[in-house]
Amino acid sequence: MAAAGGLDVVLVGPPEQLEGSGLEVIPAHQVVDMDADPGTSVRRLKDSSVVRAAEAVRDGRACAMVSAGNTGAAMASALLRFGRIKGVVRPAVACPFPVPGRAAPTVVLDCGANSDCTAAWLLQFARMGAVYARTGFGVGEPRVALLSIGEEAGKGSALVKEAFELLSDTAWQARAGARFVGNVEGRDLLLDRADVIVTDGFTGNVMLKTAEGVAGVIADQIILLADSSPEARAGADLFFPALMGLYESFDPDNTGGAVLLGVRGVCTISHGSSGPKAIANAIGVAQELAAAGIVEQIGAAVAG
Amino acid sequence: MAAAGGLDVVLVGPPEQLEGSGLEVIPAHQVVDMDADPGTSVRRLKDSSVVRAAEAVRDGRACAMVSAGNTGAAMASALLRFGRIKGVVRPAVACPFPVPGRAAPTVVLDCGANSDCTAAWLLQFARMGAVYARTGFGVGEPRVALLSIGEEAGKGSALVKEAFELLSDTAWQARAGARFVGNVEGRDLLLDRADVIVTDGFTGNVMLKTAEGVAGVIADQIILLADSSPEARAGADLFFPALMGLYESFDPDNTGGAVLLGVRGVCTISHGSSGPKAIANAIGVAQELAAAGIVEQIGAAVAG
Repeated sequence: MAAAGGLDVVLVGPPEQLEGSGLEVIPAHQVVDMDADPGTSVRRLKDSSVVRAAEAVRDGRACAMVSAGNTGAAMASALLRFGRIKGVVRPAVACPFPVPGRAAPTVVLDCGANSDCTAAWLLQFARMGAVYARTGFGVGEPRVALLSIGEEAGKGSALVKEAFELLSDTAWQARAGARFVGNVEGRDLLLDRADVIVTDGFTGNVMLKTAEGVAGVIADQIILLADSSPEARAGADLFFPALMGLYESFDPDNTGGAVLLGVRGVCTISHGSSGPKAIANAIGVAQELAAAGIVEQIGAAVAG
Repeated sequence: MAAAGGLDVVLVGPPEQLEGSGLEVIPAHQVVDMDADPGTSVRRLKDSSVVRAAEAVRDGRACAMVSAGNTGAAMASALLRFGRIKGVVRPAVACPFPVPGRAAPTVVLDCGANSDCTAAWLLQFARMGAVYARTGFGVGEPRVALLSIGEEAGKGSALVKEAFELLSDTAWQARAGARFVGNVEGRDLLLDRADVIVTDGFTGNVMLKTAEGVAGVIADQIILLADSSPEARAGADLFFPALMGLYESFDPDNTGGAVLLGVRGVCTISHGSSGPKAIANAIGVAQELAAAGIVEQIGAAVAG
């Protein structure tokens, strides 16, 4: 075991690829492909790195797991090996979105674990999201919003209308130390409107990938435009250093990745394209969440 | 009646505000506020501009209506005054999204008319969307995709899985002259993956507003960054002319706005922030759709 950035890191994977790192290695000889079906893979590939990593957390050899592989498989491993926190009906994927001008990101959940949800699950997502905003990002009294397609209470799907009623109840807000601020819309995602946005896993995943897709296409187009003329090239050379700050603020490398909330352990998921900085950041976030006792705090929140 | 850009335009609204335009005016003395409830407003404000405009189309005084006001009220007016096309279960809002490097946009529907949908409705949206892609944008054999949270057939909500089955049937594709290309994800919105993306009105509206919101925040941040240092300012002055082309390609002013498909008339909706160019463009699109007989074509498509 060696220290990396002050943390003890254990690597899980094929030993022949990991030797020489100087870090402790837990051997795992199977790989879940990025496109493989998560549930099937995790059941069949018991010697895969995500399954072994989840077992290391379960067995107390690590306080948290970090994966940049198949998201679904990492989630499934964590769910199956950690188990659910008592009282949690459905674990949910929480993703932090950067908000320009604000230190804390907006946490959106569920971003993909549960395609079909009930209003009661959304209320529990709100409770878990409030814990994450407080524990992970230091937000004192998290503002919780419901994703809809209009700001008024009566707007949205049948699910959202029912969830609005449940979320409006002041009793859960008082217990959670959170405040329900009503509906927000897709356009509010990167604005300072809420600390937590609650939605079903289908809509949340579409929102996440739409945001990433639009930002990515714009970034690609800006890079192409730099070569559209000598003036553009000269301007880009001067302007891009400033632009890099914006790029980095939207870069998933800097947000620590998604977290599966509601399971009995910490599991964070980074982008498949994560570089060293993203992985180091994700490890730091995972360690902080574990040290802050997020599992115990969620347990208390859903029991309340 | 006077010609504007080769088209005869009729204005609908308060006569005192419209006099002197030289165009024919249909008086309407009430206004539906941007935030007003659409259904209630349209029922109560029978002398509002959206209701009078819809009546002008219904009565043959105009071939199409264009509104940049309260979207829901324009849709409700069109639905109530035009009526549905025979065989159409639910009209849907279709929004064109620009695709860099491709002339035709990707049409997403439903973008907000129906929050809760059945799989059969999504199939009908596919039929109507294919007609719109062909009639509005000249796409010979539109590629129709289903919005989901994974590319594989089994991914997504119960609604999406059922819709996937219906859309996979080759009979409707042959009749519609369209091709079902499977699931796409949020990140595919601005890529050349499909000509038509089908989804329920809740998810479609979240996708639309997320895309607009992210693009808007990035644009705002880029403008702020130009003043972050003298170098950035100098670079921005040289680079922004190239960047304007990108901005304009994403500008809703240039896409002609949303269209309500499935009603017995043409109704296009522009952004509330529309400038003269956006309105002129929307009028042109509306006229073209009417001239191409999109109502009749949708009637034939849903009967087939």
